Amino acid sequence: MQRECDALRTKGKRIVLVPTMGYLHEGHLSLIREGRSRGDFLVVSIFVNPTQFGPREDFQAYPRDLKRDVQLMKPERVDAVFYPDAREMYGAHFQTSIRLSCLPKYLCGRSRPTHFTGVATVVAKLFNIVRPHVALFGEKDFQQLLVIRRMVEDLNFDVEVIGVPTVREPDGLAMSSRNTYLTAEQRAAALSLFQSLKEARKQVLEGERDAAKILQRASDRIRAYPEATIDYVAICDPETLQPLEKITRPALMALAVKIDKTRLIDNIMLCPEGMSGSDPGR
Amino acid sequence: MQRECDALRTKGKRIVLVPTMGYLHEGHLSLIREGRSRGDFLVVSIFVNPTQFGPREDFQAYPRDLKRDVQLMKPERVDAVFYPDAREMYGAHFQTSIRLSCLPKYLCGRSRPTHFTGVATVVAKLFNIVRPHVALFGEKDFQQLLVIRRMVEDLNFDVEVIGVPTVREPDGLAMSSRNTYLTAEQRAAALSLFQSLKEARKQVLEGERDAAKILQRASDRIRAYPEATIDYVAICDPETLQPLEKITRPALMALAVKIDKTRLIDNIMLCPEGMSGSDPGR
Repeated sequence: MQRECDALRTKGKRIVLVPTMGYLHEGHLSLIREGRSRGDFLVVSIFVNPTQFGPREDFQAYPRDLKRDVQLMKPERVDAVFYPDAREMYGAHFQTSIRLSCLPKYLCGRSRPTHFTGVATVVAKLFNIVRPHVALFGEKDFQQLLVIRRMVEDLNFDVEVIGVPTVREPDGLAMSSRNTYLTAEQRAAALSLFQSLKEARKQVLEGERDAAKILQRASDRIRAYPEATIDYVAICDPETLQPLEKITRPALMALAVKIDKTRLIDNIMLCPEGMSGSDPGR
Repeated sequence: MQRECDALRTKGKRIVLVPTMGYLHEGHLSLIREGRSRGDFLVVSIFVNPTQFGPREDFQAYPRDLKRDVQLMKPERVDAVFYPDAREMYGAHFQTSIRLSCLPKYLCGRSRPTHFTGVATVVAKLFNIVRPHVALFGEKDFQQLLVIRRMVEDLNFDVEVIGVPTVREPDGLAMSSRNTYLTAEQRAAALSLFQSLKEARKQVLEGERDAAKILQRASDRIRAYPEATIDYVAICDPETLQPLEKITRPALMALAVKIDKTRLIDNIMLCPEGMSGSDPGR
């Protein structure tokens, strides 16, 4: 892979990478389609990275189906699928990790303390193997996107990182490979994530600026489902992820909720500016 | 720098990097000359990297003289000198570090617990900026060389790492920018480092296999100088740096000694095989 990509680079080809853990859905296909338009040689990597799973997380259960993934990519003119083996990626003497000191303190990093080290490290490896000019990541994993951007800047990776908007099911549920874990009943509960985010956006458009009040209403809505256990619901600065008390500028609202054993995340931007247009009196 | 090197790569040029902290001596020039023979475009970086110095170490005092360095490089046909500013390298939001979990537990890592994180991180940055095909490091900093090799393999950097033998003053003192700190009297004490290493090599050639005995004699020789404070004297596996009790295969003997306030390091390989040739009875 590295030799191939280096040769293509030398020929002046623009290389695009879409890193995934496989079990592709429309969200991945949206990344792939956007990626297709951004360069000459489109690489999709499929690797369920063990180091970004915690000891009690779903690494073993995580859905895998390479044949199905290849089938789904057929119409998308992908140039190469890179699916390394974990033993290739992490040899017997492997001991290097990439850590960020601030961004992982918030949101998912609180309950998944080693997750973003695993993500940053594997993405650095993929960047060094594929040497992409451009790499695409979904905005659903907003914190991951920030971690990657920060790592790219801090370590001077010559890679343009592009965030692609979340793709949703017709009922609003954010696409995720983990949605496959959900029963019909759990799925109804799972809808409360996006519903509470939309409700929050509406509150902000109606003038609410108090983050605590917005978070309270969202939590109440989610807790109405007995299957749901909130990991966090937060309103924060969309660059540093530090919590915000007042929404006086664009803010990220993000949440993680376990529906039975399935951990789901989602997020939305809350934009008070959206209001000033509809309220010329301000 | 990054744009320039990327353009040269696309033209098929082979890029060589010699990373230094400046205040060049014959050891650096030996790296530069070896580097000159290894590619088309030779980059020497000069950066006194703050993050590899501990809070009570000599970052402020470390000798710097860019004009002198440029002068010394004049005959060496260096293509580019890269001397970034610390604020360029570490912006206000910088928060990413590269850590190794095993190699830094030994030798210099014990008294300099953040040193190799600083080294690995800055070298990764330099690799991403210069994108060398080849990078050269001195064997005097043997542990650093191992850390870089390990990081390169673990993170899949497409860089050939070359170690270059230590260059010594006529009296045997290993070349170091820090030698400039030494008074004439301290310099005599500093010679005990290499003398004790040579003595150890002789002991091994004469059949000694017990690391403790060799280390004892070396320590005694160094402690004979009141200016000398031993940080460590160790005999270890030259790949993992784990301590060895018996010298049954090639071993690294390494030491760090403070001569007054000047911390010096040196090392040598101990090879029992060297003996078997002179002992046909075995």
